[in-house]
Amino acid sequence: MNLIVQKFGGTSVADAARVENVADIITETYKQGNNVVAVVSAQGKFTDVLVDKANEINPKASKREMDMLLSAGEQISVALLAMAIEKRGFPVKSFLGWQAGFQTDSNYSNARIRTIKKERIENELAKRTIIIVAGFQGINRYDDVTTLGRGGSDTSAVALAAALNAKKCQIYTDVDGVYTADPRLVKTAQKLDSISYDEMLELATLGAQVLHNRSVEMAKRYNVDVEVLSSLTRKPGTIIKEEAEVEKMIISGVAKDTSIARISVLELVDKPGVAFRLFSLLAKEKINVDIILQSVGRDGTKDITFTVSKDNGARAVEVLEQNKKNIGIKGVVCDTNCAKVSIVGAGMESNPGVASKLFDALASHNINIDMVSTSEIKISVLIDVKDADRAVVAIHDAFYN
Amino acid sequence: MNLIVQKFGGTSVADAARVENVADIITETYKQGNNVVAVVSAQGKFTDVLVDKANEINPKASKREMDMLLSAGEQISVALLAMAIEKRGFPVKSFLGWQAGFQTDSNYSNARIRTIKKERIENELAKRTIIIVAGFQGINRYDDVTTLGRGGSDTSAVALAAALNAKKCQIYTDVDGVYTADPRLVKTAQKLDSISYDEMLELATLGAQVLHNRSVEMAKRYNVDVEVLSSLTRKPGTIIKEEAEVEKMIISGVAKDTSIARISVLELVDKPGVAFRLFSLLAKEKINVDIILQSVGRDGTKDITFTVSKDNGARAVEVLEQNKKNIGIKGVVCDTNCAKVSIVGAGMESNPGVASKLFDALASHNINIDMVSTSEIKISVLIDVKDADRAVVAIHDAFYN
Repeated sequence: MNLIVQKFGGTSVADAARVENVADIITETYKQGNNVVAVVSAQGKFTDVLVDKANEINPKASKREMDMLLSAGEQISVALLAMAIEKRGFPVKSFLGWQAGFQTDSNYSNARIRTIKKERIENELAKRTIIIVAGFQGINRYDDVTTLGRGGSDTSAVALAAALNAKKCQIYTDVDGVYTADPRLVKTAQKLDSISYDEMLELATLGAQVLHNRSVEMAKRYNVDVEVLSSLTRKPGTIIKEEAEVEKMIISGVAKDTSIARISVLELVDKPGVAFRLFSLLAKEKINVDIILQSVGRDGTKDITFTVSKDNGARAVEVLEQNKKNIGIKGVVCDTNCAKVSIVGAGMESNPGVASKLFDALASHNINIDMVSTSEIKISVLIDVKDADRAVVAIHDAFYN
Repeated sequence: MNLIVQKFGGTSVADAARVENVADIITETYKQGNNVVAVVSAQGKFTDVLVDKANEINPKASKREMDMLLSAGEQISVALLAMAIEKRGFPVKSFLGWQAGFQTDSNYSNARIRTIKKERIENELAKRTIIIVAGFQGINRYDDVTTLGRGGSDTSAVALAAALNAKKCQIYTDVDGVYTADPRLVKTAQKLDSISYDEMLELATLGAQVLHNRSVEMAKRYNVDVEVLSSLTRKPGTIIKEEAEVEKMIISGVAKDTSIARISVLELVDKPGVAFRLFSLLAKEKINVDIILQSVGRDGTKDITFTVSKDNGARAVEVLEQNKKNIGIKGVVCDTNCAKVSIVGAGMESNPGVASKLFDALASHNINIDMVSTSEIKISVLIDVKDADRAVVAIHDAFYN
């Protein structure tokens, strides 16, 4: 008996009609001879309704009580979905996170899954019961309800698929797969049949916004085949797995990220340990640094330029200004009018000329490159934000036409 | 350290302003040096919203899934109330039924509490934490969520008060106590300072609708002092306890019940065991019989008249008609135009003349009595439903003026 884990996001269960549609998907999968565990998010905007209720009473509510409040959202959707499946005459049971065995740490609002006690679900699956699990939630060792934070339901689904040795984990969403570029921006963007974990991780980090990185990392760690597909079209989506197809395209996708700040630290004293002090200061503030460029400055000084997420820009400047004398720097400049455009592809490694093709494409469209960063399966360039959309189209045309 | 259990119904936490008001009541009680455990229902009409959602998808949903759905209501209100108390700077934690240790049987939608595992709450109380508990819910031995049915949150509160040895259990509601008659009907109705469990049970059964019988029975069994009071007026309410004040009024209240059917079984063969067969037949159908009147009929037959709840009237007639020959009866007549008006009072026993005063009051208002039933602390009369309101006023005037 094959087991398939299916995850349905908030828009997929937003109202009664959508719930019925999801019940159809689940029971069709079941009728094909599979066992099914479905992981469900809260209905549509219900989480926002609850957040508003909390803010009206106490905008500084503890995370423990926020988790208690928000986890009611999935409780409602799992019960409704189970009722729709009962109506179709199939054996079904809904479970809250704790009932499905999700044990987490005590980091309320952003908890990590420690373990899944799978006995109850396995017993029910042995009886061919369809299982509906509330995503996004678990309990800690005090038996308090916790939530998993952003991308939590995806993570619940992948973790369950790993624990239960599922054949695959299907993530139903409002897009029908992973594309070579944002289809709203690039008319010729193509849906990928498959993509590797590593490529998907780079694309997620780079702002492709299909799956949260955390769930892809977990899928990679436990080697779970994940399929991203639409709950409306019923067409095959994109499979994310260890190795994508052999005859794959050289690059899997073009992504842009505009939530970036570029910080330039000028006239750093050119002594050993200076860069270390600078970056350990930022690390202490939990500010992640992405691309780093170091250049020789004047009179025995050097300049260091790096990027952080736009959210962290102001804080990074503040920290550096406060420690100007400690570190030995003259000035700090922050620029938020930049964008990072990247190409990702496992085939890149064995195909020389990818970088030059990328640079050509940008040069021929008069797009200036400020910084470059490369990994084995990725090349990112930092450019002016006003050029970002044009750059994505130009690069996509260069590689796919 | 005294412990007070406070229960707040759905209207008491219907919106943010009402939640704030309840937070004030709780923290004032706490500041007076008490520990507080608050039991809360779902907000206002939220349970109805959830029932509508269920009916839209599956009007025949299983009770297990209905319990899963409905229990989300209290989850939301306990979290919001805890947030309001956090804002006031007090240590507080909310708990779901299962976290508070409520273990029930598996009778979904109408579960009975089996035991309360009180360790967690006791540990928190020892730290002077204010505890907010989701009423109406628990879990069964499979770890499935169950709900307690009608009057469930009152029962949760009284059960917790008993388990934790609370000084008293305050039931906050939208009336400010127990009255000698319905204040909407009788202008001179007086609020009682106290009333005994037995009197309250008779009044609840008789349709006073302040507290569900189940919670009063539990209070009586575990000798918990219960106070019924309003969350808006902040005035003392009515205390329900083993023995009410010594110098109490002879009667504690006048109640009417119009949801009654009177069934007359005519020309029963007058042989031993006939009445037994008749009533055991009804018992098998779980139809409760209240007042019974037996009279001699013609030609060696007798007539039996009894009352049942209006809901059960049609079913009772059906069962008797089907078994006419078995039992040996000629005809069955059902009358739903009747009402039961009752006076309740522990002082009745030692005060002769209560019954005659009652009959006088009705006679002087030309109200005809069809049947009479008495217990040690109660006299009920069956009258025409059109006379019911006049009868309540006449009786109340006779005893309180």
